[in-house]
Amino acid sequence: MNFASDNVAGASPRVMEALVAANAGSQRAYGADDHTARVEARLKEIFERDLSVFLVATGTAANALALATLCPPWGAVLCHAEAHVAEDECGAPEFFTGGAKLVGFPGRLGKLTAEEIAAHLAAPTGRPPHQVIPSALSLTQASEAGTVYTPDEIATLADIARRHGLGVHMDGARFANALVRLGVSPADMTWRAGVDVLSFGATKNGCLAAEAVIVFDRDKAAHLAQRRKRGGHLLSKGRLLGAQFDAYLADGHWLDLAARANAAADRLAAGLARLGCRVALPVEANEIFVFLPQAMDEALRAAGALYHPWVTSSLPEGVAAGEGEVLVRLVTAFDTAEAAIDRFLAVAGGQAAA
Amino acid sequence: MNFASDNVAGASPRVMEALVAANAGSQRAYGADDHTARVEARLKEIFERDLSVFLVATGTAANALALATLCPPWGAVLCHAEAHVAEDECGAPEFFTGGAKLVGFPGRLGKLTAEEIAAHLAAPTGRPPHQVIPSALSLTQASEAGTVYTPDEIATLADIARRHGLGVHMDGARFANALVRLGVSPADMTWRAGVDVLSFGATKNGCLAAEAVIVFDRDKAAHLAQRRKRGGHLLSKGRLLGAQFDAYLADGHWLDLAARANAAADRLAAGLARLGCRVALPVEANEIFVFLPQAMDEALRAAGALYHPWVTSSLPEGVAAGEGEVLVRLVTAFDTAEAAIDRFLAVAGGQAAA
Amino acid sequence: MNFASDNVAGASPRVMEALVAANAGSQRAYGADDHTARVEARLKEIFERDLSVFLVATGTAANALALATLCPPWGAVLCHAEAHVAEDECGAPEFFTGGAKLVGFPGRLGKLTAEEIAAHLAAPTGRPPHQVIPSALSLTQASEAGTVYTPDEIATLADIARRHGLGVHMDGARFANALVRLGVSPADMTWRAGVDVLSFGATKNGCLAAEAVIVFDRDKAAHLAQRRKRGGHLLSKGRLLGAQFDAYLADGHWLDLAARANAAADRLAAGLARLGCRVALPVEANEIFVFLPQAMDEALRAAGALYHPWVTSSLPEGVAAGEGEVLVRLVTAFDTAEAAIDRFLAVAGGQAAA
Amino acid sequence: MNFASDNVAGASPRVMEALVAANAGSQRAYGADDHTARVEARLKEIFERDLSVFLVATGTAANALALATLCPPWGAVLCHAEAHVAEDECGAPEFFTGGAKLVGFPGRLGKLTAEEIAAHLAAPTGRPPHQVIPSALSLTQASEAGTVYTPDEIATLADIARRHGLGVHMDGARFANALVRLGVSPADMTWRAGVDVLSFGATKNGCLAAEAVIVFDRDKAAHLAQRRKRGGHLLSKGRLLGAQFDAYLADGHWLDLAARANAAADRLAAGLARLGCRVALPVEANEIFVFLPQAMDEALRAAGALYHPWVTSSLPEGVAAGEGEVLVRLVTAFDTAEAAIDRFLAVAGGQAAA
Repeated sequence: MNFASDNVAGASPRVMEALVAANAGSQRAYGADDHTARVEARLKEIFERDLSVFLVATGTAANALALATLCPPWGAVLCHAEAHVAEDECGAPEFFTGGAKLVGFPGRLGKLTAEEIAAHLAAPTGRPPHQVIPSALSLTQASEAGTVYTPDEIATLADIARRHGLGVHMDGARFANALVRLGVSPADMTWRAGVDVLSFGATKNGCLAAEAVIVFDRDKAAHLAQRRKRGGHLLSKGRLLGAQFDAYLADGHWLDLAARANAAADRLAAGLARLGCRVALPVEANEIFVFLPQAMDEALRAAGALYHPWVTSSLPEGVAAGEGEVLVRLVTAFDTAEAAIDRFLAVAGGQAAA
Repeated sequence: MNFASDNVAGASPRVMEALVAANAGSQRAYGADDHTARVEARLKEIFERDLSVFLVATGTAANALALATLCPPWGAVLCHAEAHVAEDECGAPEFFTGGAKLVGFPGRLGKLTAEEIAAHLAAPTGRPPHQVIPSALSLTQASEAGTVYTPDEIATLADIARRHGLGVHMDGARFANALVRLGVSPADMTWRAGVDVLSFGATKNGCLAAEAVIVFDRDKAAHLAQRRKRGGHLLSKGRLLGAQFDAYLADGHWLDLAARANAAADRLAAGLARLGCRVALPVEANEIFVFLPQAMDEALRAAGALYHPWVTSSLPEGVAAGEGEVLVRLVTAFDTAEAAIDRFLAVAGGQAAA
Repeated sequence: MNFASDNVAGASPRVMEALVAANAGSQRAYGADDHTARVEARLKEIFERDLSVFLVATGTAANALALATLCPPWGAVLCHAEAHVAEDECGAPEFFTGGAKLVGFPGRLGKLTAEEIAAHLAAPTGRPPHQVIPSALSLTQASEAGTVYTPDEIATLADIARRHGLGVHMDGARFANALVRLGVSPADMTWRAGVDVLSFGATKNGCLAAEAVIVFDRDKAAHLAQRRKRGGHLLSKGRLLGAQFDAYLADGHWLDLAARANAAADRLAAGLARLGCRVALPVEANEIFVFLPQAMDEALRAAGALYHPWVTSSLPEGVAAGEGEVLVRLVTAFDTAEAAIDRFLAVAGGQAAA
Repeated sequence: MNFASDNVAGASPRVMEALVAANAGSQRAYGADDHTARVEARLKEIFERDLSVFLVATGTAANALALATLCPPWGAVLCHAEAHVAEDECGAPEFFTGGAKLVGFPGRLGKLTAEEIAAHLAAPTGRPPHQVIPSALSLTQASEAGTVYTPDEIATLADIARRHGLGVHMDGARFANALVRLGVSPADMTWRAGVDVLSFGATKNGCLAAEAVIVFDRDKAAHLAQRRKRGGHLLSKGRLLGAQFDAYLADGHWLDLAARANAAADRLAAGLARLGCRVALPVEANEIFVFLPQAMDEALRAAGALYHPWVTSSLPEGVAAGEGEVLVRLVTAFDTAEAAIDRFLAVAGGQAAA
């Protein structure tokens, strides 16, 4: 009953098997291996266009490299106040950009609103060169609050950004979960909606360590190879990343994995709702933010359930923990067993009944 | 016949099996997994002391983090002019230190000499604060020229460094190869000889992507956790690194792997010598620098042999490519098959005979 | 009628005369001149303790160097949301710290409140090393809203900071104006209240370009000399800075200058109040934030008056521009002529009468 | 008898008078003053073309900003091994570029040779992205060895640089001294010979603190305003820099000052030669590198003469200090009195006679 995060899982069996298979024999180093080449080709198909790909091992690296590509040292990245890039990367974007500012906005349900971004960019920016220059907009899809932007919402935000000269970054640590939920194409959720650079996450959804920085316009990828090497993120045995991604993307495996995680989240959320727990935020990917009665929380923890208590400013207006309630985050993954969910609900239910 | 590098190999079967085994089930994220804990304990045994360990996926990351820990932005790192940190990391040490200088020395046979370091540090450093402050000495063991420092040589250099206030870093991308060749203990080759921070490489010697920054004095590791996270080098599914290292270090596996690579190098070097090729540098680890007659080089390449031509200033005095000779680097690994060596020699010999 | 800023003035005649006098003859370079030595001695007297001094030419340099001394790259600086360091230095603190975060708070009347800082620091900081470490608190005295912190307020904030391991910085671009207004000693307004590093401004108050980074605890000044040189802020002809400060500090000249600027602000504010204009914020230094009827604003500008319209979130609760009113900032300096004030008021009054 | 440096002098009387005159009254801040505007116009005339100007207070700031404009973090700056940017700025170029490498060449008589630069750039640069990218060439005119590049030498070097995609920087801390010596036009010594960005020094030659970054192609100056502000180098009372430069450039004053310094150097060098001292390097600007007999050195120091002993690798082949000789550097300035030279020579001569 480990719902602490989707990074407590290992890799999917298919990904692992591919890794084992790729391990044999000699391969060219530094990303010149066959697996990586195949991944690049596959991503072009999936996104229906030419693009540049840079594989790395962590989401923080992907985000920081992506933002450094879009934002100069004297620039600002506009993002949600609770964005992973702003709150959970120990300043990696500041490090890789050479000291840019991350400007956080309250948003709504974990998502940036067009109104706040438009208002910020419309405000007089003062006398240059005293203020930093807004240079990038960063969206998280699915968001840190487990919600997703529709392609229209992305397009609206990207359009505002573009009109003010900003590049658009999408932190897709849970890209597949959002995509599957929306039922749209990868192209529609990204470049067709105005996204310039995507952190395409695979680690949380069935790989061990595999993320891709995808730059849709090759011209904007200038020197990303240098940035990656200089950041220590060019793996010598590149097959490690290539082979994971290769299996992950083959035959829609990545979509299946995300569908499983999302379905598990739905099952869990529905079960909790049946027990009378208030789900605090819409469950639009594989994360559930829910208020648990304190006794239920204690019973679950006593039974060995793992998950994090949560503090967020993204709750809908008027929604807050009641007396004796605690807000928690539950995350499902591709490998979340129905049995684990059912056991979790049974423990919770025993308590609810009490 | 791929002798291009020791990073064209995959992982050793034992390491791969461990990874597969570690993949199952839930584990705590971000290095709080059981494998990583076991690795830390094992490293303390191996090095016969308390120490701090930070696992990362690349040697460049390990080196850059290690140097940033020892050298402030206004510092200088003294290293061999052909050191990997100086020449092959696209400025990663500069990036992670915040702009320190790498000062390269010609050395001898790929190794720094006590004389040149002592002379540099004895020179008047001018009026502070106009000059940067020599802050770290970085040794590569085995060196980029395939040679190794004896513990005495390390101790002599480290002693000079220490007397001038410098910390000592060892780039151990081929640590095991050097260790096995010298037949000394890990402690004798590092902290007992004065090394403060070690980049303990495992990728080239049987892992897929596994390096450890080892800080022998815990006090000097302050904020390395932050530096690693901020650099994007804290893997969420830390078991990937933990499991590789766990198997690598168990039962002396790592030493066996290095012994195999070294033996392969010896066999290859001896065979080439028998064919009349001049070996340009002592073969003290798993790299061979050898002059090949041009026709032999062509025959080998025609037969599919892979290796790099080489340019270096580390050759012994008076040693240089003769008319019609080409200097090449041949690298063996734990998985280099005797058959591959023999076939290489046969092709070379056919040519030699001609 | 130039009330645009206190940096539209030149130097006070005494400062200028000192500069002329100091210009003659040879002097040792790089701050080893006699003037600079005298300034250091004088500052120790004025602040009643031993301290380290680093003269620079700009307030941005002083602030950025000060913050870099207190805050590591993975740290956060807590400051007012409208602090100069956060909003008006194009990211200089981020640059000099190597990428730290500036975390802005709404404050009240331009000043940080103990409540918001205590609450922020009391909140769980999450799992290290994912979040940056709050490392410095930065106060502006006088504040960007023209208000001043009392020594007690400073002590309360500094005490909270210190208990959480943060260093305390004071941006004293208008230090003298605040000091004179409060009528306390420099020691009481700084280190006795818990300030660790002070940006001691002189440019706005009678110098041409002269700021001092004052570190009260010498141990905390380690490598500030290197930071300054590396930042390009060590003047070769150091007498330029030394001579200005020498005259500025002699015989309480600096206090006289500030008293003049403050008195001019009072006269101007009182006059405007008499004309029925609402002063928006307490006038506690040499800045006036006042609502002008639009017609008055137009008449003043037509008459050649110079000043900036202003946007701020620091207004007292419930205070806002009324219909047809514009918020403006008026800044007086040591050289603001009574005649200029009276003329300004006359123009405004003509309009008020109309 | 202070020959320690040309920064032990104050400003020329004309510059000082201009500063006093400029001090009166209000002026727009941050470089929007009339003086600065006039300086820009004058520089366009002097250099016979459109250009961008950024005034700063130190040569280190000018150099670091200039190099940061030409060289990305993953780039290399090729320069003389004894260049000020490499040896005497405590890593300012590394700081401002975000961690670029400075690659030093031995040169000849303090000047880079076309051969060494061409050879370096012709060498295979290895596999991208492992190596940094040569991005800028930096020449010092006059050089750190007191020699000057002819326009032809500059053009040859710049042409090599340009063919390999490098920008060309000139560190003109002693620009005027070189120019006057060569008797060529500022345009011929810079952009017509291929210089992209010039650090135009005035501090050493008659100002107190005044340097200009001059970018000949406006397109290459993008964001230099942000870099300057962010570096803390935008003075609020910009008239300080504007007024100095205004007087410095008026009526050829700057050329007269340099001519005086050069003439003083010639007189001093000739006198020493007459006394039998060996001048170690050609005197082509205002610096003399000369071997003094030890007794003469002692007598001079006893008489109060100030100058630095020197260590350099730039001496002509075969030239070295003889038994009992010491190499020293003597620097003259615009204000070096003939009397001081004659007294110096008299003391030296007394000793020489002995």
